[in-house]
Amino acid sequence: MYRTHNCGELRLSNIGNQVALAGWVAKTRLLGSMAFVDLRDRYGITQLAFNEETNKEMLDIAETLGREFVIQVEGVVAERSSKNPNIGTGEIELIVSKVVILNESITPPFTIETDTDGGDDLRMQYRYLDLRRDVIRKNLELRHKLAQLIRSYLSGKDFLEVETPVLIKSTPEGARDFVVPSRLNPGSWYALPQSPQTFKQLLMVSGFDRYFQIVKCFRDEDLRADRQPEFTQIDCEMSFVDKEDVLNLFEGMMKNLFKDVKGIDLPDFPRMTYADAMKYYGNDKPDTRFGMEFVALKGEDEDLVSSKGFSVFDTVESVISIAVPGGAAYTRKQIDALVDWVKRPQIGATGLIWIKKDEQGNLKSSVDKFYSIDDLKSWESALSLENGDMGLLMAGAYGKVHKQMSELRLHMGSELGLRKPGEFSPLWVVDFPLLEFDEEQNRYHAMHHPFTSPLKEHLDKLHSHPGEVNANAYDMVINGVEIGGGSIRIHDQELQAKMFELLGFTDEEAKAQFGFLMNAFKYGAPPHGGIALGFDRLCSLMGGSESIRDFIAFPKNNSGRDVMIDAPAPLTKEQLEDLELS
Amino acid sequence: MYRTHNCGELRLSNIGNQVALAGWVAKTRLLGSMAFVDLRDRYGITQLAFNEETNKEMLDIAETLGREFVIQVEGVVAERSSKNPNIGTGEIELIVSKVVILNESITPPFTIETDTDGGDDLRMQYRYLDLRRDVIRKNLELRHKLAQLIRSYLSGKDFLEVETPVLIKSTPEGARDFVVPSRLNPGSWYALPQSPQTFKQLLMVSGFDRYFQIVKCFRDEDLRADRQPEFTQIDCEMSFVDKEDVLNLFEGMMKNLFKDVKGIDLPDFPRMTYADAMKYYGNDKPDTRFGMEFVALKGEDEDLVSSKGFSVFDTVESVISIAVPGGAAYTRKQIDALVDWVKRPQIGATGLIWIKKDEQGNLKSSVDKFYSIDDLKSWESALSLENGDMGLLMAGAYGKVHKQMSELRLHMGSELGLRKPGEFSPLWVVDFPLLEFDEEQNRYHAMHHPFTSPLKEHLDKLHSHPGEVNANAYDMVINGVEIGGGSIRIHDQELQAKMFELLGFTDEEAKAQFGFLMNAFKYGAPPHGGIALGFDRLCSLMGGSESIRDFIAFPKNNSGRDVMIDAPAPLTKEQLEDLELS
Repeated sequence: MYRTHNCGELRLSNIGNQVALAGWVAKTRLLGSMAFVDLRDRYGITQLAFNEETNKEMLDIAETLGREFVIQVEGVVAERSSKNPNIGTGEIELIVSKVVILNESITPPFTIETDTDGGDDLRMQYRYLDLRRDVIRKNLELRHKLAQLIRSYLSGKDFLEVETPVLIKSTPEGARDFVVPSRLNPGSWYALPQSPQTFKQLLMVSGFDRYFQIVKCFRDEDLRADRQPEFTQIDCEMSFVDKEDVLNLFEGMMKNLFKDVKGIDLPDFPRMTYADAMKYYGNDKPDTRFGMEFVALKGEDEDLVSSKGFSVFDTVESVISIAVPGGAAYTRKQIDALVDWVKRPQIGATGLIWIKKDEQGNLKSSVDKFYSIDDLKSWESALSLENGDMGLLMAGAYGKVHKQMSELRLHMGSELGLRKPGEFSPLWVVDFPLLEFDEEQNRYHAMHHPFTSPLKEHLDKLHSHPGEVNANAYDMVINGVEIGGGSIRIHDQELQAKMFELLGFTDEEAKAQFGFLMNAFKYGAPPHGGIALGFDRLCSLMGGSESIRDFIAFPKNNSGRDVMIDAPAPLTKEQLEDLELS
Repeated sequence: MYRTHNCGELRLSNIGNQVALAGWVAKTRLLGSMAFVDLRDRYGITQLAFNEETNKEMLDIAETLGREFVIQVEGVVAERSSKNPNIGTGEIELIVSKVVILNESITPPFTIETDTDGGDDLRMQYRYLDLRRDVIRKNLELRHKLAQLIRSYLSGKDFLEVETPVLIKSTPEGARDFVVPSRLNPGSWYALPQSPQTFKQLLMVSGFDRYFQIVKCFRDEDLRADRQPEFTQIDCEMSFVDKEDVLNLFEGMMKNLFKDVKGIDLPDFPRMTYADAMKYYGNDKPDTRFGMEFVALKGEDEDLVSSKGFSVFDTVESVISIAVPGGAAYTRKQIDALVDWVKRPQIGATGLIWIKKDEQGNLKSSVDKFYSIDDLKSWESALSLENGDMGLLMAGAYGKVHKQMSELRLHMGSELGLRKPGEFSPLWVVDFPLLEFDEEQNRYHAMHHPFTSPLKEHLDKLHSHPGEVNANAYDMVINGVEIGGGSIRIHDQELQAKMFELLGFTDEEAKAQFGFLMNAFKYGAPPHGGIALGFDRLCSLMGGSESIRDFIAFPKNNSGRDVMIDAPAPLTKEQLEDLELS
């Protein structure tokens, strides 16, 4: 037995107890005739006290202890003279009577502290030291807690956790699969799942009724910042449900999580159609922590800008504006900076027009040589400008300008401090288009996946106007982050066949790739639907960080490498020969 | 909303309620003017009643319902006239006022019943229908329940669930890895983990103190019956522990599981050394539900058989015997069958000698022309034969004959009904040899893995007599099944380097494969140890089945194929080109 207590446990009530602790030397303070050592483990820090008078031998050992040495100590708990109110053990210290050095440590390449001096690359290479830092460990403790709460919530709702296979079959549709050569079946390959989609649907055909799994998924994509080739999904499916059943259940789950973990009562999640999200936020995952909804000054039914001599507005399809609260105070320099910002290639706008309503209610605009005061008043009214506000206008093709304005809106939200880290604004985005047309390939793609059910009321347009059909699909969005998405699935074999046809599958291709699912549908498939939530993303959202990497114990870098273990790496000749790939 | 209740829920207290149910048609009984339909879902079966008098229209629909049709019904709960005490809903039925056929079904290729008429291959091909059977679903419900209980137990003991990566680096030592080509790093490969061993040790270096994970692992072996290329492990690791800490904690976990799931109070787990297990059972995973321990009649210190004219016993190294309770009643024919059984090539024994003590206490033996009554009495005494017992003797080289006798012992246990399915006899086997010598390659292999710590008291033999060093390793065995195993690990970099050297690694090889771990040990690695339990195996043991496949939702067959989805399969030319493998 190495210890009787952990380093975060001892209190005033333990005074006089003989105890043993084990942990890492976080800090030593040598004061000549005495020394103090902060002993750290996962649970906390306990101060060890050494004193020449009471135990010279122990003091001598204490003086040899280096940072990150692993030691075991025995001693008696005593009240501290100068207490530390910031830590749980701050009222006591251990008068050490025995020290055993369990392991030494060379000097770590960076400091094991919340604000470390280690850069990203170094911390990744020595991830095992990075994980010693409080801040990263707390992230993973949060992840642990969330996983347990999610499982407990879902189990309580009759969901069964079922493990689906990792070695499955490649389906060339969609993103690229990671593949695994089969030694026992030369020339054949397994694929790693991008999601357990077809398996969870088969479980519904099997009558499992409610399924969940917190499961690793894999996608061989060209990596972007904060994308991981392996990621974790909370994967769920339910039978005999319609959309509202699914939304209510998972809304309930999120409310539970936020209450348990953060003490926050989330409001009911509003439902917003995809069309509205695009119209008012230019984005299918709007950050609704703040307003600044789009106002169309020129668009489908409106036109408050044309034929006034400002040719830019005359020729464009859309003019979109947002009202920036308090924006009238923006200086020329600040506005110039905004103009530069939207003109950057990442945004790609051609310019930015403003209208200000000062504290006295007077209107001014960067284009007031073209527009009369009455014109400006019509904008003011459309934008519901208050005294001190500023309206920002952008012009362009419908959709494109919405996207640009969406970026600007988020930028303004950040600049004005409206995207508050401790605030959470959830919503459901619903009624996504079923298909998106790929101009290059001249064919439709499934916006979610080929198993998504069209809205019942749009079924009759599936032949005539497939592009206008909406899906019975939904995304959960919180603070502008897509936490997850799902849909009611197709459970009818004929409709499923029709979908494959629309997506350009030949009968043979559909059969080769999804024959087992289409077969399964012949044997009494129930109506079903589900959702998959990004667990890494959820952890980082609830942990208040932008980076999912901080919530993954051993993440890969942007080239898909684990720099700590140095993977991937070449195989040996024997391994390649075994696989008949040499 | 498809239903107000599930099919296992309604009781007498619901009589008169208007309810909606949804599920599968399990059975229809058409009786002319009335019909009964058993509606099934995961939760149970509810009887639907149709009557010409009350609702002719509904009866007409009922008559069209085929097996496994998916329907939704509405109606009023009524008391049954003839009750079924075997099911929870057996006192009520639903008087149906509305039926909606949600999906039809063609005739399934086998019956969806506990005793199905479907063969193994057919059931695997249509696994989604096989999973509809009560018996398989209950297995997976048990698996779900065990997973939740295990996580809850370990979380309650301060273990943190941490996900370790699936795309890691290949280590050619040990079993074969499944490998994954990296498209972004051409020529480089990931490997799928055979276990998260090194990562969990790194987590201990990180100060995580207690880690667990229920995790998929992968091994590209030549498959045997009931081996799966992907399997699930309960993987655990703890810091600042010695062997007894680990054993007690996981013994506690098993006791909890058996109490919660089966209402069984497991006894304390005895500790048996590997040497004793081999000596008394010829097996490092003895089935201790019954006795019949080996008694050496000729061996290290004993010789009750030589120099009596029976040349077989004169020349062999060992003569081992077991006492078969009640075995004196065995007929000549039965004994001949036993002799044939041990002579089969799978066992490979040369023969079998018996000694009987009849109900009157008289001794008889198949070799009594060589041995006097006093000789036989010495055997009787060594074997503690009771009236009516039989002793069975086998001869051969030490170790080899133990293995053969182990098989015979298990066979006798089965024949005599001593291996009772509802009985559970757990134990820990401890003090395994650290190394085993590979005659062919003329080198040592790690019996567990290269990270296993030698027993402290054997450290001084590591140089001089490495073959005699025992490991601080342990296996959990229940009913002759190895449920899991683990060890206290090496946490000292020099000892670890020494181990790699003993195992024939060059410095370069050790560094290339495990450099990250050896590096980590330089920064304050705590003493640590852990265990990994086979989750598939544990489920099948607790579920009372021999086959782990019955406890895996979508298992692979003995060639590593998923015959349902038809994987593995060839890739497309484009996929191979992307991987530069075409």
